[in-house]
Order: sequence, then C-alpha cells, then structure tokens
Amino acid sequence: MPILPPGINETDFSAALGQFAETVGTNWVFTSDEDVALYRDAYSPFWGSDEEKLASAAVAPESVEEVQQIVRIANRYRIPLYPISTGKNYGYGGSAPVHSGSVVVDLKRMNRVLEIDERNATCLVEPGVSYFDLYNAIQEKGAKLWIDCPDPGWGSPIGNALDHGLGYTIGHFRDHFGSHCGMEVVLPNGEVLRTGPGGVPGSKTWQQYQYAFGPQLDGIFSQSNFGIVTKMGFWLAPEPEAFREDTVAVYNHDDLIPLVDVTSYLTNSSISNGLPGLGSPLLRAIGTSWGGPDSDPEHIALLQTSDRPALERYGREKNIPYWTCNIKTYGPKEVINAQWAHAREKFASSIPEATFTEGEKLEFPLTYEQGEEYQQGRIAGGRVDFGIPNLSIFQIISRTPWNPDPKFGHYYFSPMIPKTGEAIFEASKVFTEAYDQLGLPRPPQGITSLPALYYQRSAMLLMALQVTRNVEVDRKNRSAFKELVKIAAEHGWGEYRTPPAFQDDVMNAYSFGNNSLRRFNETIKDAIDPNGIISPGKSGIWPKNMRKA
Amino acid sequence: MPILPPGINETDFSAALGQFAETVGTNWVFTSDEDVALYRDAYSPFWGSDEEKLASAAVAPESVEEVQQIVRIANRYRIPLYPISTGKNYGYGGSAPVHSGSVVVDLKRMNRVLEIDERNATCLVEPGVSYFDLYNAIQEKGAKLWIDCPDPGWGSPIGNALDHGLGYTIGHFRDHFGSHCGMEVVLPNGEVLRTGPGGVPGSKTWQQYQYAFGPQLDGIFSQSNFGIVTKMGFWLAPEPEAFREDTVAVYNHDDLIPLVDVTSYLTNSSISNGLPGLGSPLLRAIGTSWGGPDSDPEHIALLQTSDRPALERYGREKNIPYWTCNIKTYGPKEVINAQWAHAREKFASSIPEATFTEGEKLEFPLTYEQGEEYQQGRIAGGRVDFGIPNLSIFQIISRTPWNPDPKFGHYYFSPMIPKTGEAIFEASKVFTEAYDQLGLPRPPQGITSLPALYYQRSAMLLMALQVTRNVEVDRKNRSAFKELVKIAAEHGWGEYRTPPAFQDDVMNAYSFGNNSLRRFNETIKDAIDPNGIISPGKSGIWPKNMRKA
Repeated sequence: MPILPPGINETDFSAALGQFAETVGTNWVFTSDEDVALYRDAYSPFWGSDEEKLASAAVAPESVEEVQQIVRIANRYRIPLYPISTGKNYGYGGSAPVHSGSVVVDLKRMNRVLEIDERNATCLVEPGVSYFDLYNAIQEKGAKLWIDCPDPGWGSPIGNALDHGLGYTIGHFRDHFGSHCGMEVVLPNGEVLRTGPGGVPGSKTWQQYQYAFGPQLDGIFSQSNFGIVTKMGFWLAPEPEAFREDTVAVYNHDDLIPLVDVTSYLTNSSISNGLPGLGSPLLRAIGTSWGGPDSDPEHIALLQTSDRPALERYGREKNIPYWTCNIKTYGPKEVINAQWAHAREKFASSIPEATFTEGEKLEFPLTYEQGEEYQQGRIAGGRVDFGIPNLSIFQIISRTPWNPDPKFGHYYFSPMIPKTGEAIFEASKVFTEAYDQLGLPRPPQGITSLPALYYQRSAMLLMALQVTRNVEVDRKNRSAFKELVKIAAEHGWGEYRTPPAFQDDVMNAYSFGNNSLRRFNETIKDAIDPNGIISPGKSGIWPKNMRKA
Repeated sequence: MPILPPGINETDFSAALGQFAETVGTNWVFTSDEDVALYRDAYSPFWGSDEEKLASAAVAPESVEEVQQIVRIANRYRIPLYPISTGKNYGYGGSAPVHSGSVVVDLKRMNRVLEIDERNATCLVEPGVSYFDLYNAIQEKGAKLWIDCPDPGWGSPIGNALDHGLGYTIGHFRDHFGSHCGMEVVLPNGEVLRTGPGGVPGSKTWQQYQYAFGPQLDGIFSQSNFGIVTKMGFWLAPEPEAFREDTVAVYNHDDLIPLVDVTSYLTNSSISNGLPGLGSPLLRAIGTSWGGPDSDPEHIALLQTSDRPALERYGREKNIPYWTCNIKTYGPKEVINAQWAHAREKFASSIPEATFTEGEKLEFPLTYEQGEEYQQGRIAGGRVDFGIPNLSIFQIISRTPWNPDPKFGHYYFSPMIPKTGEAIFEASKVFTEAYDQLGLPRPPQGITSLPALYYQRSAMLLMALQVTRNVEVDRKNRSAFKELVKIAAEHGWGEYRTPPAFQDDVMNAYSFGNNSLRRFNETIKDAIDPNGIISPGKSGIWPKNMRKA
C-alpha cells in the first residue's frame, strides 16, 4: 500500500497517476510496493524507522516533452516530484526523496548520448546516461577522448555534476560541475530553458562556451530544486600520451606542512595535473588511520604516547615515512618526465630530507592487461585514474579498521577544509575529540583521515558513518552527525554535500547574514515554483507551504 | 541641471539625495552637471543625441554598510541605482547607466585589497580595487603571484569578472569569472549574502572552494542586476619560471582548419597554456585585415580576384604564410621546451608543410628592460602577457585600416563562434556580406578579423564599430549593429557581452523556448527586487514596472 504525498487526497493522487500514465504509458508508472521499494535508499540512515524517507510512486518519462507534461500535471494536483538521473548517489541519499510521499521522476529512459565532438572534446548527454554508457559511446566512435568518472561507474555524469561530484583524472576535469558546458532545464512551470549559448536557437557554441548573455544561471540548478535538468554538455580530456606516478616521502610530523604547500604549488601551476594522494605509512603501520587495527604491543605503546619524537624515531629506524604524497602526471612522455624532475627539485629544496620513489609509467591507450595490473595494486578502483568506469569500489567500500566486515552502507560527513598541513592537524584534533565526546567509534590514534585533494584549491575530509540497520544505533549516529556539522561550522568548515537526512542542518550551518543564503534560495524557490512541486526540502530549501516558521 | 529618474518627483529625489549624503557624507554625493558628466560613457554610441543614457547623480560609499543603507534608501524612494566598480569598461558602456536617470553607485572608495594568500595563491578584493592596485599590493608583499589582466590596467578585477571579461596569461586564469572564488553581495533588499563557503561564519575556505551547499549562486550576479557585489575572491597563478613563444606558419587557405584543431588539442590538453594568437601575414601584406590598406597594384589585383590558388601562390613565392599561430607556454624551462617540441611534432604530423620559428624566451621575474623590450615588439600591450597591468593599449585602440586616425571611441560587436577553421571561414563570409549590405566600411578583402581564443573551447570575434560623434552616422551604425546581432543569431552565434545600447537586442537573440531565458531572469528579478532599484535594464532585464508588454 503506497503512502500518499502529505496533504494530497487519494482521489487527486489517483487522478495524477492516471495522467502520468497517459503521458508515459502505464508500464512506466510504478505504484506497487515492490516497485516503489526499489527507490528506497539502501544506505539510508533512517532504514526501517518510521522517519525513513519514502517515495509514493515513480514515473519514468522518455523525452523532454514528457517531463514537461509530468511537471504540468504535478502543478495541477500539487504533487511533489523528486527527479533522479540514475539515482546511484550512495552515501548521499540514493534515489529516495527528501520529502516522503514525493513521486520519483526516474530519468533512466532518457539515456541518449546526443553528441560526441572529438575535435572540440565535448559531449552532450541526457540524465539517464551512465559513465559506462558515455565511455562505451566514446569507444564505439573510436574517439581519443577521456571521461572523468567517480568510483562507481554506474552513476550519471549529469547527476554527479549536479551534486558537485568529483573524479580522479586530469586537473579541472575532476570537477564535474566545473567542466560542464550548457544545460537544458525543464522549469517548475513546465517551460524549457537552455543555459549558455543554448539560448540562441540553433546555437553553434552550446558546448563550447560556459557563459551566455546576462546572468549565468547554470549554478542555481546544481544541488537545488529549481528545475529538472534534461540535457547537459561536458568538456572531455583529449587522451593523454602517457602517465607517471611518483612518490615523495617525508619523515617528520611537521613535514606535512611543506609537503602540502609544494603539492599546492604543483597543482596550481598545472605542473602536476593528476590527483595528489596523501598517505601516512607510519600511522598505518602502527595500526591507525585506514590501515586496520593492530595488536603489536610496541605499536600500542606508541599509539598511547603523545611523544611525537618517539613516533618519528620509530619511523626512521624502520624506514617508514610519516607522510607520503603520490604525484600523478598525465601528458606527453618528455613533458611529464620534465614535470616530475621539476616537482622533485621543488620538494627537495623545501624538505631536504625527502625521499623519492618512481612508480608506475604507462602509455595510452592501456592494454587490458595493464588495466588489470594497475587495478590490482590499488585499494580503490585504480581504473578511474584513467577515466575507465568500473564498480570495483564495492569490493572495499565501507571497510574500515573498526568495521572490517561491513554488512550495510555508510554515509559521508564531508567538510571542506583549507589545503594546508596546519588545517589537517587542526581538523584531526577537533574531530578526534568530537568522536570521543559523541561516543563514535574511532581508530586508536585518532581521526587521521587525510583529506582528498580532488578540487584545485581546497581539501575534503571524507568520514564515513556506518549504517547499521539497528534503528537505535542509527538514531544515535544521526544525532552525532548533526553535532559534527555544528562543530565543523564552529571552526569555519562547511560540508560540500550531505544526505537528505542532514540537508536542513548543513544549510543552517551556512548561516551568515541571518541565514541570508537559505532565505535568498527560498525567495527564488517561491518565485519560480509557487506550488513547491520540485524536490521539496532538497538542500534545505522548502517551498513556502512546507516551510517551518 | 541634473535629469531626474523617470517617474520620481523632485521632492523625493532631493530627499533621497539628502539621505545618501547623511550616509556617505556630502562630499561623496555628486549632483553638479560637471561631476555627473564624468559618468558619461565617452564611447557612447548615443553621444550627444537625446537618447544618450545619463546618470542623474552619483554616490560613492566607503563600506558595505553604506552600500546597504543606500539600497534601503533607494527602495524607500524607488530610486534606480547603477553600481559601477571602476566604471572603465570602454567599448561596453563605460560608467553610464542602462536606464537614464539612475543614480550611479560609484564603488571607487571601496578599494581595499583585503587578503593576499601566497601559499594558496588567492586574493580577496573590493570592487574599487584596480588591476594596478592588486598588482602593486602583490609586489609590495613580495608574493610570487601573477594576476591576469585585460588590456587596460585601470579596470577592476571584480567589474571585469562580472562582465565575463578576459585576459592574456595562463589557461583558466584568462577566464576572470571562472577563476573567481567567493562573493559578498548586497542584495536588492539591503541584506548581505556571501556565496560559497563564505556562508559559514568565519569560513576558512571562502577563497578556496568555488561551491557551497545548495544552489551555486555566484553566476547569477554576473552580467546582472540582482545585487551589488562588494567583495570577491580570485585564484592567482604562482609565478611561472619561464615563458616561450613560438610560431607555426602554414601556406594554404584551408590549412587554417588543422591549425586550429591542433591548437585546440594543445589548449585542451594544457600542453600549451598561453593564449594562442592567430594571424594572417599574407592578408596583411596585401592590404587587408588589421594591417592597413595598401595601394600596390599587384595587391589590389590579388584582392579583387576570387582565385584562391593565385593568392596562395603569391604567398609561397614571397614566402609569406597564409596563416600563423603564436604558441605561448608558461612553466619550468625544461617543461615548456618539451611542450613546444611536442606541439611542433603535432603540427608537423597534421600539416607536413608547416614551418616553425622560435621566438621570445624569458625567465621570471622580468627585468624592467625586458618588459620594455617585449612591449616594443607588440601591437597591443605586451606586458599583459605577464600579468603586468598597463595602459599602452590606448596607443593603438580603435585604429583600423579603414580608420587610421581615430578621434573617438569604439564599441564591440563580439559574437562567440565555434573554435574551428570552418566556423572562421563561415563567419568571415557572413559578416563581409552583412557589412556590405548594411553599408558599414570594411577592408577590401572582407572581414577577416581572426577570432580571439581567450576562452578554452570557443572563439570570439571582436569587431569594433567606431563612435563618430556624428549623431546621424552613429544612429546608422546603431541600427547596423542591431542587424548584425540578428544575422549572428540566425547562424547560431550569440554575443558574450554588449554595450547598454544593445542589451535588449542581444537578450532577445537568446530567444530559445519563447524567450524563456529572459522571462526566467525577469521572474527572479521581480522576486528579489520588487521595486526594481538595481540597474534596471541591465542585460535586457527590466523590472516589472518598466517592462514592455
């Protein structure tokens, strides 16, 4: 028995569903418990509790015109809609709506790769296109182009970009929203808008120029509920000639500061265009961080000491670096060799004691065997380094030292912090104390999760909280998460993205000017979607009729 | 005798001016004819006609709080405001309002460089800061950072970025809006909004992360009238080690196609990160393009022939290339040498007949003498290649073959076209015919203005129309401009920016979906600025009470 959207009576709901069916065909309106359950968030932090956010039904249009018609019907009956592209953003909400009772608009059938332009290295896709689809279309065409994909390849380039998602390859391409170019959006009133040069009918530069004339609107359709994006262009990378990965290692705790600074210089100068990977072999060796617990009495003693020199001494004796950074570079062979030589020189002049190890050297296109081999040596899915979508992340996801045998999912607490060693130290200290205070399990040495450096200038902490499917534990964890959001905000750190369960909390943390950000968003929401039909509550933006005083 | 804002009576206007004076001090409210005349657009295509767009007064606040207060007063009396930063966007409207009678809000006193972070290569500035100011502040601090500036250095990084302006240095830094990070905006209701992580009070990543939580709002404050930007962050480039500029030359007309394609590959792969410069020594030698007219009978004969092989033969005999492209690269010496070697190889394999000339090689920081010397060899201000603001463009601006002795200004018709040789050929043909049809003066061979490749993926034609200060000629040219906008739109080309005189026309050319772009902007405008006080008419967005049916 499906739930109803709050405030909608059965007659109206049935009428709306009937009109949806007239629009898309009865096969593409889903109302049975079995079908609607597929839209549950498998990683929901509410799983099984009465607070779980559930869809009332789903409808799967095949064209822009059908999306427009669905929006018009929803306006007629005030039915809240929740559009998803492939609905795979595990850890950030999956395909379940923010507002229970919403009808999921599942765009999976709009899965056409509309254009691949090799000369200009661009593409135009629909929301149901997955990274696999786009990759395959490029291979079939034989175009020498790379996509940039996140860990799981089943997601949607559009969905991921709209959520400000990230990938692993070259420079600015890792920023999926930043490397999009042009959008088509069905507005909450059912009209169609094209951003950028797409506003000129028959535009010749829609996927070439990121602005247009007047206000640049694209951004407001990301992480938002201002429309349903039905097409989006992306810039792709020309296939590079070669790749090399090298490692710099340092032995003092405080060496992390210049290590990050030199890495920033290399990124900001595009001297290394790959994703830098920070690590701590020393903390890992003695049983902390992401490396798994350890029962060696010497390690335990070291972990319990606050004697930093003792730790550093231990590392030196065993020749285990305190910190490392993997430097990845893509480009012509001679160029990347010169780039690494320069990088090495910069590290050495800043940290004289640093040591260097040359790693993988590859030329493209990879053979299948090379892909396999590279993959083997990685914790996570190594193929994403080369824009090859895959699902190998699911072999390891959610496995942490304190949860070696994960049964369910996780969700991310992911604040942005400055890209400096000092900020990493401060965040480690703050969140270690917070975890203890909140009774969250943590590794013995503390939260030493090193940030991910996907973005050009900032660092992202990614701390996974386990979904236990124990209603009580999950409730406790949700409340701890809300505290973490507050603690982060007190230190000037905001989250880049969050599951629906916490979107109000995170939006409220962006409270500058008496919450002018939220209120400005609400003003726009009310103006363009007076009936509040598109994704109510998404990113903490509620329509007028559902807003708390 | 100052003009009044339309529909505002003298009593209310005086009351508003009085309250402005209470806010900023009487010295900073300008009402005399002499003072207000300073805000005329010296390059106005309406100069001297009764259609000229004129300010009624000006007010110069010193702080965000004063800007808020001015906005509140303007709301009280319905006074239209027209904020400017340094007001120098010559060719695109200067400091004159779009709506005659507006009060210019001159932000020149808000000229503080609030932060320069060398480690993270960012800055935070106010709108009155000029490129000179920012450059000087960096030099004073001794920070090894580059700014990216447009031709004239007196403009404002904020003003230029908000108008989607461009510069000459390294890769993405040339896109001034794209390399901004974080804004503070006084909204039309007088409240203050901070975009990006700036929404978190005491944010530590405001200039580091370009998004925030929820809709990314920054874009809608560019080329718009949705608020007054009072602070903005920018990403700066770490000073590169060295620079080289090399030239590839080709001899056939159709070689432009692979020439542009290889250049695109190099740009899209960041193998050459400088601004590629297209030229045609052949067309210039025989007296067309930007090179000045010529009376050599052989040249005239060649120009009058449509016999392309004859032209190509002439070039070959005299060893004058049909097309050239300057390839500029910044970075460590060994890296840029390897990059040029790779670029050369790519050009040679695509155009076997291409020839190569090695040009300038420099190391940074430049000596004063090197700056001078480089400057001498340039048509335009060469120092902008190294992020050194200057005003030397005014030695040559507006001088074209058909106007060798410019007395006044110019304004730009600047459509975006695809970055392909074919598109350049098509645009040349279309606009040559259009110029003839419209009776606009053009060089004998036709419009062969080669596009500027500032942006990563698109090409920009820049065609200057002269301001003659002959009211009749100017009227004729304005009407020709409007036709050019229509002709461009018929070919799928939209303008990136335009003077106030043509903003309605250009916005109307973005007509997809029954002008859904304009109407969506109007919906936002009405919601956030119900009294229509901020820059009415800017970018073709008029508030409800001034909108034509």
